This record gives sequence, C-alpha cells and structure tokens, in this order.
Amino acid sequence: MRVSDFRDTEPTQEMPGVTKRDVITAADGAPNFCMRVFEVEPGCSTPYHTHVWEHEVIILSGQGVVVSEEKETPIAKDTVVFIPPDELHCFTNNGDETLRFTCLIPLGT
Amino acid sequence: MRVSDFRDTEPTQEMPGVTKRDVITAADGAPNFCMRVFEVEPGCSTPYHTHVWEHEVIILSGQGVVVSEEKETPIAKDTVVFIPPDELHCFTNNGDETLRFTCLIPLGT
Repeated sequence: MRVSDFRDTEPTQEMPGVTKRDVITAADGAPNFCMRVFEVEPGCSTPYHTHVWEHEVIILSGQGVVVSEEKETPIAKDTVVFIPPDELHCFTNNGDETLRFTCLIPLGT
Repeated sequence: MRVSDFRDTEPTQEMPGVTKRDVITAADGAPNFCMRVFEVEPGCSTPYHTHVWEHEVIILSGQGVVVSEEKETPIAKDTVVFIPPDELHCFTNNGDETLRFTCLIPLGT
C-alpha cells in the first residue's frame, strides 16, 4: 500500500487560484480510477465545462457552490457531489478560506 | 448532478463500532466506481482482510493506523491511502474521537 499526506504531492496550477494534486494515479498501481485533491482560493472557480467522464467529489474544507445549467447548490465540508458524464459544472469558492475537495475520475480519460 | 451531506445517507453497521454509508452508487448513475464513508469508533477496527479490488481512501477526521502484513502506518486527517488488489489491510482507530474516511472501490465487486 501507499500512505501519504495529500500535501506530499506536488501541486500543479490548473488556472489562477486553482491547484490540483494527483494523489493516487496509475503510477501507484491504481487499475480503474484516480484521486485528485483540488484547492480553490476565495473568489476563484474551476472551469465551467463538461466531459464524457464522471466526477465523484467530497468537500474537505471551505465553502462555495457547485454550478450546473439549472442551479447553484451550496457546498461545504462533508458535502458529497456526483456529477454524471456530459453534465456542465464548476466549483466556485464564495467563502473566506480555501475550498478543498477530493475529486475522483476513471483512468484513461 | 446529486449533492448531499454524507450524513443524509443512512448508515449500515458493518461490525461493532464500524458504520458504512454508500454515498455515491450505481443507483445515482455512477458508471465505474462508488464512494462510501466509514466511521470507526475509538478502539475499533475494520476487518483485517483482502479482496481482488483496490481501495482509494482519504481520511476526513480522527486518527489511527492502517495495518498491512509488513507494518502499521499512522493515519489522520488528510492522509491518502492506496491499497492495491489482494493486499491484506485494516483500519484501526487508536484515538479518542471517531475515525472517519471515504473509501472508493470499483463497481461490480
């Protein structure tokens, strides 16, 4: 097994105010899906986009909204979000501290 | 998309002092893998076992150890654990508060 603190993984900047850490990947031997940890700074947002793969998310800290075509839904620590394939979405930090969440996707995307 | 607090999902008791919530499942439309949230009470442990599927885990709160055949490794909030297929493991709470973690597995297990 591999045990680490998520901060042991070097972050990459996805866009201004948004970093991503690939904390479990195929390089670890993961056969099916991978885990990333995102940090979104106050006032910032992940891209509003869609893709053919799903997201499975749990919020670790902070607060914000998850945006779809229909609505904005509040999110905070312990919120679980399932985004099916091909659904427009983004995660926006509307709080005062870092919005942190883990987001899993299938391998091969 | 589906947005919920993990506590909105009814827990099932896995064994004494261990509950599981299936927070994202095939019933939500998840095509590849599913998310569960476990709570382990102080002094309790998940089964020491092995299976052909992997675990992708992040610790949400509490502290304990993850046990393999070789060693015990401390875990706490923000620890990431990848357990490959066919590796013996258990999660033990050696702290004073609930050990809570999310654990993802492939569908069809």
